Amino acid sequence: MLPVISIVGASGSGKTTFLEKLIPELAARGYRVGAVKHDAHGFEMDREGKDTWRLRRAGAQVIAISSPNQFASIRRTDREMSLEEIVGRFFWTEDILITEGFKREHYPKIEVFRSVLEPKPICGPGDNLIAIVSDDKVDMQVPGFSFADWRGVAEFIENRYLRGRKKPKILVQLDGKQLPMKDFVEDFVLGGIEGMLSSLRGWDNPRTISIHIRRGDDD
Amino acid sequence: MLPVISIVGASGSGKTTFLEKLIPELAARGYRVGAVKHDAHGFEMDREGKDTWRLRRAGAQVIAISSPNQFASIRRTDREMSLEEIVGRFFWTEDILITEGFKREHYPKIEVFRSVLEPKPICGPGDNLIAIVSDDKVDMQVPGFSFADWRGVAEFIENRYLRGRKKPKILVQLDGKQLPMKDFVEDFVLGGIEGMLSSLRGWDNPRTISIHIRRGDDD
Repeated sequence: MLPVISIVGASGSGKTTFLEKLIPELAARGYRVGAVKHDAHGFEMDREGKDTWRLRRAGAQVIAISSPNQFASIRRTDREMSLEEIVGRFFWTEDILITEGFKREHYPKIEVFRSVLEPKPICGPGDNLIAIVSDDKVDMQVPGFSFADWRGVAEFIENRYLRGRKKPKILVQLDGKQLPMKDFVEDFVLGGIEGMLSSLRGWDNPRTISIHIRRGDDD
Repeated sequence: MLPVISIVGASGSGKTTFLEKLIPELAARGYRVGAVKHDAHGFEMDREGKDTWRLRRAGAQVIAISSPNQFASIRRTDREMSLEEIVGRFFWTEDILITEGFKREHYPKIEVFRSVLEPKPICGPGDNLIAIVSDDKVDMQVPGFSFADWRGVAEFIENRYLRGRKKPKILVQLDGKQLPMKDFVEDFVLGGIEGMLSSLRGWDNPRTISIHIRRGDDD
């Protein structure tokens, strides 16, 4: 699976500023980085009066805008998507996903902590903290880095999550949730699907296969 | 498959304005509408200085922002995605997709045409024109509607593409391109996949199944 690392910390601790250093460092090491930001308060992505804004206001559930070098979409949702759904639906071609926020999800976390602003880190035991970036020495039994040491953090992430990583061959999601499979089960499912599809006209040894199934609509 | 209708027409003909009437009319009839706009010139989705803008500038390939009621993503692309890829990746839960632009793709088109602005419609034979919305009578051998008759256009789309439509059960994409399958082949592939997965721990009669396969990465 795609490694997901969450950068968490109190508001104003400097998460985005640190990410502005960390992301280019990971990109410079040859990794394709995806980023997800959590926003509890809603957000405005398009601007009043723009065509996309007009189409959304008109009642489109999803609007997308496509150009030669970028693609954007905005989707109305009934509930907040889980990080797992987000990863599966939107980050298939990246090497790593860095999130800002999402403290409550179970992914590994790096806390950005300023002792001058907060009495103690927001992460505690059970929060899956893997490192801390801080202006001070903090005893959290995880590696500590200074704010200026984004290279050290990139190195740490690379060693732990990216180097020699077996790229995922198959990702199966049931109602948006990943179905865990052992290696031999993966191979079995992969072989079964490729076996069925490769006998069909239109098969031309593709690099990627995506299958979406909606069940029970016709019942 | 999801019906896709493209609203095309010369610049300034009133495509967005017409869509602002048509989309709510379709939504009022109970359909979930997706919209895609083509933008040849690139676009600015986020605003300078915003966190998402900062993360993108830092080099993230994809940035996404998640909140309880909406989800947005912006992706860098090497080339413009085809409408077929867009449909498959981003519009799985909608009933119909309306595009603004995309004249060169093969989907059915409705042209918005103002005779006071242009000498003749931009669509010709072979463009898969299915209707025209115009300020004048145009002989294009397709149904004609006035600008004020968005209800008529919605009715026309509904009758032709939405009513009694068999919902897709399975969509298979090879390198982003839909694999066409006859009904019995669909049933065969569907049965094979459900058969394999339903024997695994973690299967709980899901409503949707998504499978992503990357081939050849390990070779």
